[in-house]
Amino acid sequence: MARFNNDYCRGAHPSILKALAETNTSSYAGYGLDEWCDRATAEIKGYLKDDSAQIHFLVGGTQTNYTFIDHALRPWESAISAEDGHINVHETGAVEHTGHKVETVTSDDARLTAAQIEAVVHEYETSTVKEHITKPKLVYLSLPNELGVVYSKAELEAIRSVCDEHGLYLYVDGARLMYALGSPACDISLSDLAHLTDAFYIGGTKCGALFGEALVITNPALDDCFRASIKQNGGLLAKGWLLGLQFATLFNDGLYLELGKHADEQAMRIRHAFERVGVELYADSSTNQQFVIVNDQQQALLAEHHIFELEKCLDNGMTVIRFCTSWGTEDADIDALLKDIARLA
Amino acid sequence: MARFNNDYCRGAHPSILKALAETNTSSYAGYGLDEWCDRATAEIKGYLKDDSAQIHFLVGGTQTNYTFIDHALRPWESAISAEDGHINVHETGAVEHTGHKVETVTSDDARLTAAQIEAVVHEYETSTVKEHITKPKLVYLSLPNELGVVYSKAELEAIRSVCDEHGLYLYVDGARLMYALGSPACDISLSDLAHLTDAFYIGGTKCGALFGEALVITNPALDDCFRASIKQNGGLLAKGWLLGLQFATLFNDGLYLELGKHADEQAMRIRHAFERVGVELYADSSTNQQFVIVNDQQQALLAEHHIFELEKCLDNGMTVIRFCTSWGTEDADIDALLKDIARLA
Amino acid sequence: MARFNNDYCRGAHPSILKALAETNTSSYAGYGLDEWCDRATAEIKGYLKDDSAQIHFLVGGTQTNYTFIDHALRPWESAISAEDGHINVHETGAVEHTGHKVETVTSDDARLTAAQIEAVVHEYETSTVKEHITKPKLVYLSLPNELGVVYSKAELEAIRSVCDEHGLYLYVDGARLMYALGSPACDISLSDLAHLTDAFYIGGTKCGALFGEALVITNPALDDCFRASIKQNGGLLAKGWLLGLQFATLFNDGLYLELGKHADEQAMRIRHAFERVGVELYADSSTNQQFVIVNDQQQALLAEHHIFELEKCLDNGMTVIRFCTSWGTEDADIDALLKDIARLA
Amino acid sequence: MARFNNDYCRGAHPSILKALAETNTSSYAGYGLDEWCDRATAEIKGYLKDDSAQIHFLVGGTQTNYTFIDHALRPWESAISAEDGHINVHETGAVEHTGHKVETVTSDDARLTAAQIEAVVHEYETSTVKEHITKPKLVYLSLPNELGVVYSKAELEAIRSVCDEHGLYLYVDGARLMYALGSPACDISLSDLAHLTDAFYIGGTKCGALFGEALVITNPALDDCFRASIKQNGGLLAKGWLLGLQFATLFNDGLYLELGKHADEQAMRIRHAFERVGVELYADSSTNQQFVIVNDQQQALLAEHHIFELEKCLDNGMTVIRFCTSWGTEDADIDALLKDIARLA
Repeated sequence: MARFNNDYCRGAHPSILKALAETNTSSYAGYGLDEWCDRATAEIKGYLKDDSAQIHFLVGGTQTNYTFIDHALRPWESAISAEDGHINVHETGAVEHTGHKVETVTSDDARLTAAQIEAVVHEYETSTVKEHITKPKLVYLSLPNELGVVYSKAELEAIRSVCDEHGLYLYVDGARLMYALGSPACDISLSDLAHLTDAFYIGGTKCGALFGEALVITNPALDDCFRASIKQNGGLLAKGWLLGLQFATLFNDGLYLELGKHADEQAMRIRHAFERVGVELYADSSTNQQFVIVNDQQQALLAEHHIFELEKCLDNGMTVIRFCTSWGTEDADIDALLKDIARLA
Repeated sequence: MARFNNDYCRGAHPSILKALAETNTSSYAGYGLDEWCDRATAEIKGYLKDDSAQIHFLVGGTQTNYTFIDHALRPWESAISAEDGHINVHETGAVEHTGHKVETVTSDDARLTAAQIEAVVHEYETSTVKEHITKPKLVYLSLPNELGVVYSKAELEAIRSVCDEHGLYLYVDGARLMYALGSPACDISLSDLAHLTDAFYIGGTKCGALFGEALVITNPALDDCFRASIKQNGGLLAKGWLLGLQFATLFNDGLYLELGKHADEQAMRIRHAFERVGVELYADSSTNQQFVIVNDQQQALLAEHHIFELEKCLDNGMTVIRFCTSWGTEDADIDALLKDIARLA
Repeated sequence: MARFNNDYCRGAHPSILKALAETNTSSYAGYGLDEWCDRATAEIKGYLKDDSAQIHFLVGGTQTNYTFIDHALRPWESAISAEDGHINVHETGAVEHTGHKVETVTSDDARLTAAQIEAVVHEYETSTVKEHITKPKLVYLSLPNELGVVYSKAELEAIRSVCDEHGLYLYVDGARLMYALGSPACDISLSDLAHLTDAFYIGGTKCGALFGEALVITNPALDDCFRASIKQNGGLLAKGWLLGLQFATLFNDGLYLELGKHADEQAMRIRHAFERVGVELYADSSTNQQFVIVNDQQQALLAEHHIFELEKCLDNGMTVIRFCTSWGTEDADIDALLKDIARLA
Repeated sequence: MARFNNDYCRGAHPSILKALAETNTSSYAGYGLDEWCDRATAEIKGYLKDDSAQIHFLVGGTQTNYTFIDHALRPWESAISAEDGHINVHETGAVEHTGHKVETVTSDDARLTAAQIEAVVHEYETSTVKEHITKPKLVYLSLPNELGVVYSKAELEAIRSVCDEHGLYLYVDGARLMYALGSPACDISLSDLAHLTDAFYIGGTKCGALFGEALVITNPALDDCFRASIKQNGGLLAKGWLLGLQFATLFNDGLYLELGKHADEQAMRIRHAFERVGVELYADSSTNQQFVIVNDQQQALLAEHHIFELEKCLDNGMTVIRFCTSWGTEDADIDALLKDIARLA
């Protein structure tokens, strides 16, 4: 049975395994102060076109999110997130554990808008009892978002503009950034992100690495002592070159972008197959996660030969299920899946 | 130049690299719920002789320490540590960051004693204003300790006895546990640790793995919801089988114990060489870290061909330097070092 | 102009001022270990009919809420609250500041129901990824709630039953408890609260004292070391007898219940006056807070001679305003207000 | 029996009780936004000669200390304190509870020196692994210190100079500030403090008020959103005018300075009486706390008619006991004590 349930169920791209094997007996300085981290930084900076950006390599996504948010916010400040933002629903209250409220905004498709953010800030700014409420200071969003949807550049620019007007930080969770960048629907580049955000991270774990996330901090004020925050939050890997080596490999010759494109194309084959048989899409995703609405019979049929994720039971008895492709999804697996989807007709 | 400055400057034992390569295209359930973690757990349990022990795999040592301590303690409770305990001096206040005071005890050789612990508890228990002070509830110690010294079983039993009498948890940081177990001076086994502590961890990062620590919780009350704490503190690796695979490999056929023995033997060669030329030892270490006291001239001579760690400048102008061996230290490197040590005479 | 904007705009009931004056030159043990606190405890216990209840005197409501919640919860546990619960909207994220998520439930009239609580718990209990979400462990509600509405005993019993079934704590914020107890619509007594909750507090600040809240902990497991939590959270008043003296006075001869009844009667005069002229009530409050919906003209007319609270602008251009009575509201002030309300017709 | 065991065992100066009685039926805006707080601010500012200073009124000392320190520090920053500083030993780890390490310095007489502070900072600044340790950022000291000793202006200037050089905040805990200002040995004024510190507080609880501390923040960067921190930490008193009224009364016509002088003179009578009979002083205190070293027999004799504090048992079998005077200590009580001290000869 092929696993389509997530994009982190297999090891790493072969070139990473190769690099690991080749360097296994070399010795390096610890904690990310090594030549591989330098090289990965240089490779990534080539895409950012922002010399002042600082890049830090952490181990996982939850760790990166709460470490950065805790570092950026003062105790009385809060983060704004879509209600189904990852920090609000899948990270065991890690942001609150560091002392900060997550102010949530409800949305149909897991997307935050500039207007919603403005409304939250407006409520704070017009309050006559500001000291009784938390101060919204950071906007958290994912690219693509939790439903695989890609923000447009215009949408991000509008959000940036609200942030500028009200002194908010914009932070983008890029756990699956590769799959956004690989989508034809995405008009945002790494360089755009560097210019539009105060910080964002480039996912490794779900994008071809064994593990690892590259946090890009473009607001220098937020970089001060950030390595201390990484260490304090348990994210400073002793053998830090393992992170550098993986990102140097992923960004060498544009592999990262290529892998994203591959996965998205495989995902679109799945999407179109569902569309062909009239299965309703739950979200308009152009990236590696496809959410579709099926009945019990359809679900059972698909479950015979394929592993996918149960997302949500709807009130009408239907179920939302998720299929993920990844950098490593092979044609044969997709072919087999498509055959079964065709049987749903 | 050979690196003796630490025990985490190189990759992993070749058998781990091999296992990684062999499993790279297999797919697994995420977050440690996979067959490799099961197998590693079974291998380790074979040594513990404690069926109720629960084993959790985390990424790094600081993370393991503060996550467990935060999980075990209530807000008003504190941890007792030697003044130079790792949690007190090298972890960026991670324990305090989670809200807990570290009560420190001064000691000549970084070792805690049962009597010292009893004194701290006595001060609390006889206080007439208990609500104005934190309640000592957990004893933190490292095996071997920060100076490579191994506690005796009798010492740990005495500490356990104080803990039992006063309701304290005993937690052992085993970042370098392999090197304690490998020392002829150590009369403590993994099974002893399981019976003497409430929890301890078996270090991987400094002991032949790429990364990873195996936390053993033997007090069932402290295991409740521990996976939530791992996630909340950023330690739940998505591709958790990478941890299981490494520990399964390290514990297969007793490799872990063998590697520790090898490193300690290499370290004793260094120690004896220093003793032969009359260089004073800073600590009576029988494990992979050797601390010696040298003058500037001696230090310069050794620095010509070897990388070691500068530990501390003494008031008398002498310097304490540290040489670390590891699972991977080769005879040729030791031979070369010994030749230079001989020149110090 | 009479202040109806809140119930904490004036000093204390005269009998408290008198007691303060009479004891000013006496000396007492500090931190609540004095005879006044003992006496207040005894007076309150007379109403609780629960000998094992422990009573702690704190200074303010926010302090009492977050100190107790932080004391009761483990790091991975969360509190369930109505979306407009005081801890969620008016306490500057104090609960999150201590590390805990507040899980919110939306409700029309600020009331939590047993079914809503069960739904939140059900989601947790049926989750297959429990370690990725916080564990709901405590139910927070106010009596009366934020809109002055009183839960019925049957409602609280249903909530208690859900709590029992799922191992949740039930905690009741009684900042305005006096006004609930004073309402004919309330069939809950102090003794009922002691038996239905794990802890609740009896408000002083808004109920005739200069300041102070009496926290009643009826679950002995939650009382362990609670004084340490008070001190750690800045709530242990040095001259603690000032709290004891106030509560001893308020509970002497049933004054507390009497004052609540008085304020509620005054509030009902306001409510009926609004009803007589056809002004819509925003909430069905039988206690000292009355919320009504007015247009701009009505609001302006009332604002000429009375101070009230602007609560919320509705989408239809109308405004919700709040009138509070208190233990000290005098007939003359109500008479004057009623005259103006009559002019709204 | 007269209580000399502390300076917070009685009510308030009569003028405060009088003011309370006179204003009890007036109504005020809540949370410190009232005319009494304005007036107290103006009175205090008259002494500060620093127009930009901001004054906040909080309820207690522990609350003021940890709220300010938490507000001022970033997560990776720590506070420097003498080992027996109040925040380190008598506040139940409140500073650590908010996430910050307290770096301690050992001292014979509870006094921090500029050189000691410089040494702590030097260790950080010269560290090659800064991200593994906390960054010292705030100096905490008490005036007078825990043993009643007053820093000289020159000492504070030297400390300020170290702070300036290394970017540290200087924060002075003035729980007993009145007794420092009242001592002839003190050459520091309120205006000096305003100019030398980033923030300090003027104690009320131990200095003639029922409760309350006036925090003076002179570094504008540290005042931003401070009221939110007070609320979040449970210190924002609903009936805030009670704090303003007390400080306005204490600072009216220099009462605060007068009361301090009175208490110190009474304390010096005690000190001289002990000196006359050859009882050794434990500290060279010129303020309201006097620490003396007595044997068991002497202690028993004094305990017959006077209540004092047992501070510490010395290794030689002697005991350190403390006598506190206060704003309210009467001649008759001192006379009686002196008679018994004379019997120790």
